[in-house]
Amino acid sequence: MADLRAVIMAGGSGTRFWPLSRAGRAKQFLDIVSAKSMLEETVDRILPLFSPENIFTVAGSAQTKTIRKLLPGLPAGNTLVEPRARNTAPSLMLATARIYLDDPEAVVAALPADHLICDGKRFLKKLRAGAEIAARGDRIVTFGIPPTYPATGYGYIHYRDKDPLTRRGEAFYDVLAFKEKPALAKARRFLAAGGHVWNSGMFLWRADVFAGKLKNHAPEMVPFWERMLTALKRRNRSALQSIFDDIPSISIDYALMEKARGVYVCRGDFGWSDVGAWSSLAEIWPADSSGNTSRGETMILDASGCLVYNPRKLTALVGVRDLVVVDAGDVLLICPRDRDQEVRDIVQALGKTGRTEYL
Amino acid sequence: MADLRAVIMAGGSGTRFWPLSRAGRAKQFLDIVSAKSMLEETVDRILPLFSPENIFTVAGSAQTKTIRKLLPGLPAGNTLVEPRARNTAPSLMLATARIYLDDPEAVVAALPADHLICDGKRFLKKLRAGAEIAARGDRIVTFGIPPTYPATGYGYIHYRDKDPLTRRGEAFYDVLAFKEKPALAKARRFLAAGGHVWNSGMFLWRADVFAGKLKNHAPEMVPFWERMLTALKRRNRSALQSIFDDIPSISIDYALMEKARGVYVCRGDFGWSDVGAWSSLAEIWPADSSGNTSRGETMILDASGCLVYNPRKLTALVGVRDLVVVDAGDVLLICPRDRDQEVRDIVQALGKTGRTEYL
Repeated sequence: MADLRAVIMAGGSGTRFWPLSRAGRAKQFLDIVSAKSMLEETVDRILPLFSPENIFTVAGSAQTKTIRKLLPGLPAGNTLVEPRARNTAPSLMLATARIYLDDPEAVVAALPADHLICDGKRFLKKLRAGAEIAARGDRIVTFGIPPTYPATGYGYIHYRDKDPLTRRGEAFYDVLAFKEKPALAKARRFLAAGGHVWNSGMFLWRADVFAGKLKNHAPEMVPFWERMLTALKRRNRSALQSIFDDIPSISIDYALMEKARGVYVCRGDFGWSDVGAWSSLAEIWPADSSGNTSRGETMILDASGCLVYNPRKLTALVGVRDLVVVDAGDVLLICPRDRDQEVRDIVQALGKTGRTEYL
Repeated sequence: MADLRAVIMAGGSGTRFWPLSRAGRAKQFLDIVSAKSMLEETVDRILPLFSPENIFTVAGSAQTKTIRKLLPGLPAGNTLVEPRARNTAPSLMLATARIYLDDPEAVVAALPADHLICDGKRFLKKLRAGAEIAARGDRIVTFGIPPTYPATGYGYIHYRDKDPLTRRGEAFYDVLAFKEKPALAKARRFLAAGGHVWNSGMFLWRADVFAGKLKNHAPEMVPFWERMLTALKRRNRSALQSIFDDIPSISIDYALMEKARGVYVCRGDFGWSDVGAWSSLAEIWPADSSGNTSRGETMILDASGCLVYNPRKLTALVGVRDLVVVDAGDVLLICPRDRDQEVRDIVQALGKTGRTEYL
C-alpha cells in the first residue's frame, strides 16, 4: 500500500447554522449530526486507513485552537495554517506541498471536514481503492455523489459511463467535464442524461502528480507552488504570509480540475450529505410519525414537520407546521423549514446594527 | 369617609400562562403586564385610597410566602390563608369575617389580583364613589365591564339602564340579574339589547351588610360564617381547617350575587383586561408596525403578529406569522396565537407522563 496522507479541509466559515455556528465556530465544529463534532467524525471515519501522524488539517489561524482541542490525538505540527483564507486551491497546494517535502509519491486524500457520510465502511473501501488508483501514476481520483434530485446548489461531474478502471471491485470512470452549479432546467437535463454526479469536493492525488498537473494545466499557480516548497522547507512563516497575500483566491475545481486530464470519478454511493442548512438535518435525525425531529426533549401536540435543536430544555410545540426552532443558549431562532437560507440575512442585519455579540 | 378595607383575591392557580406560570407561581405573581407582578400592580393601584394596614390578601398557604415576599409593606397578619381552595364564596366570607371582627361597618372592596386596569385614576374615582354607596347601607356594589365583543368566556350582569344612583358623578345601576357564561348567540343578544356588562368579579360591601345578605339569600352558608367568626376570634387554625373541609366549594356569584337584592353595578370603563392567555398580551404590550410584540430583544425579518416572551436572550424570527413564543428558562413553548388555550393540554399531558418538574 502506498504512503497515504489525509488532508482535512477544516477552514470553512459560514452562517447557515446560525445561531449555533458563530464566528470561529463553523459547521465542522458543531455536534449537529452526532454527539461529536463533524470534524471529529471525519477523522474517526478514516482512522482505519490513516494513522494519526498521517492526518493533517488545514484551516485559518483563528481555527487552530479549536482544531487542536477537538483532535488531541493528532501531532500539533499536522495542523496546517493558511495565513489567509484563499479558497481551496491555495489551501490544498499548501497541504500537498507540505506532504511532497516528506514524500513526493505520497497519496493525498483531500476531504472536507463538514460532510456527513452514513456508510463509513463503504466509503473507506472506495477510498482505499481510489488511493491505489491514484498511487499508480498520472491520475487524480474524485468522488461524485449520485444525484437524488436536480440540485442547483452543487457542481456536477460528467463522466464517460463505460469502460471504467476497476480496483477492488470499485469502478473509476473517466471524467469528461466538471460543470458549475447549473440552473434547474440544466440540472434536470443532467439527471435525465445520466453519467452526471454531484461534485463532493473529495480528491485523491499523488503529491508529485498534483505538482505535474499544476504545471500542465495551471501554470500561473506554479510560482506559488515553488515559493510554498521553499517557505515550508525554511519554516518561514512571513514568506508563507506573503505567498497567501499574492495568490489568487480560487477553488481547486476552477484552478485545476476543470482543465486537468486523467481525472477519474468513483460513484460515492455511501450515503452523503453536505448538511447545508438546518432543514437538511430533518433527513438525518430520526423523526417521529409526524415528521418532527429534535435534539432535546419535546412535548408535541398536533405539530408536524418541525426540526428542533434545543438540547438544554423542554420544547413544547402546539399546532405548528414545518418550523425550524434553534436555541443556541443566548439566541433563539424560529423560521419555516423552507426559509432556513434566510438565516444569512439575519446575520447580515445583526452585523449592520452592531450586535456583533450574536455573530 | 367610611372605614375602607381591600381584600385582594390572590389564590388563583391556572395554567394558561404556562410555561411561565407553574404550580405556586400563578398569573398574579408574573410580571407579564409591567415590570412588576400583577399582584403588586393591584396593590400599588389602590394605595391612594387604602393604607397598607387596610389591605388584605386571601390565598392558599402555598402562596403565602410569595405574597409576603412581593408585598413586604403589608402587615404579615393581613395575609389571610384559606386552609383549602374552595372557590370565591368561602374565601370572601373568611376575609369579610376577619374585617367584621374589627369593624362591622367597614366597607370591603373585593378585588382580583390578576386583572389589568389601564386607567388607575378613573378606577379609583369609581371605587371611592362605589365605597360611599356601599357605606350607606343595605347595598352591594359591583363593577361591570362594557363589552367590546360577544364574549362567551365571561358572565354578564344585566342592569336596569335608567334612574341610577349617582355619587361623585358616577352612576350605579340597579342589577336585574347575573347571567352565567352564555353561548355565542345569547352573548350577541346581550350586546344588541344593551344594559349588559361583563362580570368583573370586583365587589364592594359593608361587612355587616354582607352578613345580612348571607342570612337572607344564602342561609345554608350562615353556620359556616358563624363558625368562621368564632374560629378567627380564638385564632383557632384547626377549626378553620375543619370549616373549609365542610364548606361547599362555590363562587360568590352563585352563592350570593345571583340571589341578592340591592346590588348596584357601575360601568367599569377604565380599560380592563383579565389577561386570560398569552395572546391577550398582544393587545397590551406595544407592537411594531407588523403587529409583533415582545418582551426581550428581537431581530425580525418578514414576521408578523407574533408575541414573544424571552427576556433573557435574542429571538430571531424569519417568515413566521401569528405565533406565541415563550421561553421560561427551562421550557420553550411555540404555538399559534389562536391556539394558546391548548397550553392546558400540554400541561395535562406533561402531568400524565410524569414530567412534573415542568408543571
